[in-house]
Amino acid sequence: MCPPAEGNNNGVNGHANGSANGVMSHEGFTAIETGQNPHPQRQRNPYQPVGDFLSNVSRFKIIESTLREGEQFANAFFDREKKIEIAKALDEFGVDYIELTSPAASEQSRLDCEAICKLGLKSKILTHIRCHMDDARIAVETGVDGVDVVIGTSSYLREHSHGKDMTYITNTAIEVINFVKSKGIEIRFSSEDSFRSDLVDLLSIYSTVDKIGVNRVGIADTVGCASPRQVYDLVRTLRGVVSCDIECHFHNDTGCAIANAYCALEAGATHIDTSVIGIGERNGITPLGGLMARMIAADRDYVKSKYRLEKLKDIEDLVAAAVEVNIPFNNYITGFCAFTHKAGIHAKAILNNPSTYEIINPADFGMSRYVHFASRLTGWNAIKSRATQLNINLTDEQCKQCTAKIKALADVRPIAVDDADSIIRTFYRNLHHAENKPLLPDLTPEEKAKVAEKEKELNGQPEKRALDEAVADQAPAKKAKA
Amino acid sequence: MCPPAEGNNNGVNGHANGSANGVMSHEGFTAIETGQNPHPQRQRNPYQPVGDFLSNVSRFKIIESTLREGEQFANAFFDREKKIEIAKALDEFGVDYIELTSPAASEQSRLDCEAICKLGLKSKILTHIRCHMDDARIAVETGVDGVDVVIGTSSYLREHSHGKDMTYITNTAIEVINFVKSKGIEIRFSSEDSFRSDLVDLLSIYSTVDKIGVNRVGIADTVGCASPRQVYDLVRTLRGVVSCDIECHFHNDTGCAIANAYCALEAGATHIDTSVIGIGERNGITPLGGLMARMIAADRDYVKSKYRLEKLKDIEDLVAAAVEVNIPFNNYITGFCAFTHKAGIHAKAILNNPSTYEIINPADFGMSRYVHFASRLTGWNAIKSRATQLNINLTDEQCKQCTAKIKALADVRPIAVDDADSIIRTFYRNLHHAENKPLLPDLTPEEKAKVAEKEKELNGQPEKRALDEAVADQAPAKKAKA
Repeated sequence: MCPPAEGNNNGVNGHANGSANGVMSHEGFTAIETGQNPHPQRQRNPYQPVGDFLSNVSRFKIIESTLREGEQFANAFFDREKKIEIAKALDEFGVDYIELTSPAASEQSRLDCEAICKLGLKSKILTHIRCHMDDARIAVETGVDGVDVVIGTSSYLREHSHGKDMTYITNTAIEVINFVKSKGIEIRFSSEDSFRSDLVDLLSIYSTVDKIGVNRVGIADTVGCASPRQVYDLVRTLRGVVSCDIECHFHNDTGCAIANAYCALEAGATHIDTSVIGIGERNGITPLGGLMARMIAADRDYVKSKYRLEKLKDIEDLVAAAVEVNIPFNNYITGFCAFTHKAGIHAKAILNNPSTYEIINPADFGMSRYVHFASRLTGWNAIKSRATQLNINLTDEQCKQCTAKIKALADVRPIAVDDADSIIRTFYRNLHHAENKPLLPDLTPEEKAKVAEKEKELNGQPEKRALDEAVADQAPAKKAKA
Repeated sequence: MCPPAEGNNNGVNGHANGSANGVMSHEGFTAIETGQNPHPQRQRNPYQPVGDFLSNVSRFKIIESTLREGEQFANAFFDREKKIEIAKALDEFGVDYIELTSPAASEQSRLDCEAICKLGLKSKILTHIRCHMDDARIAVETGVDGVDVVIGTSSYLREHSHGKDMTYITNTAIEVINFVKSKGIEIRFSSEDSFRSDLVDLLSIYSTVDKIGVNRVGIADTVGCASPRQVYDLVRTLRGVVSCDIECHFHNDTGCAIANAYCALEAGATHIDTSVIGIGERNGITPLGGLMARMIAADRDYVKSKYRLEKLKDIEDLVAAAVEVNIPFNNYITGFCAFTHKAGIHAKAILNNPSTYEIINPADFGMSRYVHFASRLTGWNAIKSRATQLNINLTDEQCKQCTAKIKALADVRPIAVDDADSIIRTFYRNLHHAENKPLLPDLTPEEKAKVAEKEKELNGQPEKRALDEAVADQAPAKKAKA
């Protein structure tokens, strides 16, 4: 389950994690029907979950709900133009479904829903309505591919929200489902606050709607209280009760939204609800990027083949700007420190082999790895040790010159490990072959001027430079000011 | 496992979740030894995990590592003064242990460690060193209560980092542990990258160090690859092999750091590593606040009795400022939207009974609940519906006046639900009893002046006011601009 980030996740791991043999897996069954050994090179890795026919970790689908759950985020007020921009971006990314706010919520929502249905996206379009005939009648006229109905089944919601009993809920569900199906449209039935609902009530209504042919049933942790093993147990139990697909929706109030999604898939769920950077009611739901981080660590081939991961950062920037928030510093994959390693601690190992301290390859998402030596505060000792690793022979004085250049460049733009390596190599070549190639190839004239200025500054202040380097070698930036 | 946020989590839930009967629980065993029924009022809630003697969910300890793991965060450069400030804040909060960077890392680290040991805090002080006699000799002289040793056991780290084999690792561990114990100091032995290590190697070395009397063994998900059920399986297996305490350390690269901590406790782990807002290598580890969110949903009494939760926000602000990051918008408990509900969707239910859509009571952390009607964009319809809920009879015109006042006040400071309620009540009393009480009691003269100005503005622009309200009633802020 924990393959090397850069390794091929197909061979040993792909087989051994067994999740390729999902309950709906044609490939999985094929392997067995043809009598092939599904574990040809199985290695002794005890933390590799034993092959599990229940798991859909390698065949999950995404229901992207930025335009529904995300609209309930405190700061979200999307106009039609923004909704269309987000829908197109999600479609390009490759999400399976895009879920929209109920057309019954307002005339504006209805018109926006119609407009998005007319875009002809590859992603299927869903809308999310109350389990009520009035809403269903409006929804089926919008052109959506599917309708998601929801009703609260917990005692909390039955008492304080809609006030209906289970018989009423069941009868209404049957009426709405039959109506939507009669229009040839996909239909999902979900309970709300499922983890505080009575299990017998839940299984009873899910079994009923499964029998009349609902496409999916949904489980929703509306208040964010569920824990991973509870999720696994409920989904596994439900998997034995219904034959339709199972969708799961997890809020993140207690920090388990990604883990719960993963455990739900392990237990046989088929669809996971996400939103971009997790926006939604309160602190939100399973984030699209966070789910990608989790799933790529489990099955890199499936995730890479299905989703255009290099688009993730742009989508996140788009939505963050629209709802006027910053990407959290510690955001999965795209946060500024997601692939930053501090020199002197892990740097040697990470430079030798990134898999030692990374489970995700940043390049899969078009991101870069940063090791802290390539920064304004880097010391020449760090550069010397990197040069040695690269088999480049520089004297101490030459290392100091090269360090000054890296610092000057790092002041102008962030320097990734690869950049630092190529600067060291070019610096060396320039020295020994009397060349004068630019250390970074694509600097603009403005950037070049800035670098020259910085270099002059550093060279003109030998004392400050010595101090900076001494300080940087011990890494405390704040002390430099003191 | 999902009690109402405001409910008493002691009775039914406290018993039924069974985690009060941890493996080291005196109370748990007492209940059984005296023959009492441990489930006196057990209710049929199928998602309540069945009573489990393994679980330490109700008796976990925190090893707070902001001053060790947190120092490895890209932006962290703590000077001694800042370290002492953070240590004191963590001590006040009530963490069980504070872990510090190795005194072998630099002379500065050694002196800082000594200084913190001399503070006389209630929290025990640990330092975290490589499994090496040189480091151990330095550590035991600093005055720490305990030493945490760590060595990489995965093939990745053995090959690319330290290059040692398991026999060497075991022999060194025994030497270091015996030495530290001989000084009367607590000792923990941890593997690094445990989830990519060979299970037989792991169990073998843990069993050896347990027999020679180590206080704790540690499991570390150094690369953030572990999933909750893997964690549960490994910790449960280890629980059967060692009799000492079990500490767990989880990175958050794939979004499972909080969930993994929870599952580790369910499986019998005793100590969880945290850092404030999760800072650490790459995107960090289990955040202190996020763990509190998870644990208070599981056992509110234990968490509230042990930790001064109302200090959480101050500690987070302190550390965020020190490492120059913003608190993420979606941070657990303290993020700006953690307790924000949007009017018209959940507002009625949340006002009736907050437990319908909240699993955590914000007041436990000194935080407030916000419902979106109490904002600059609120419409008078929302205020009218709230007044009706409060049994306060206002005409439409009076509601509009009251709304203008709430908007003016909301421009000056954020208005929580309680504030809005008290404003409506005071407004009504002022009307009907010819009183003139201030709508918000503790406004400064400057704030009063601002409110008066805003009110004049709103009253002077009847058209703009009408437009704002019409727009606000449909909630799209952006459209107001268009």
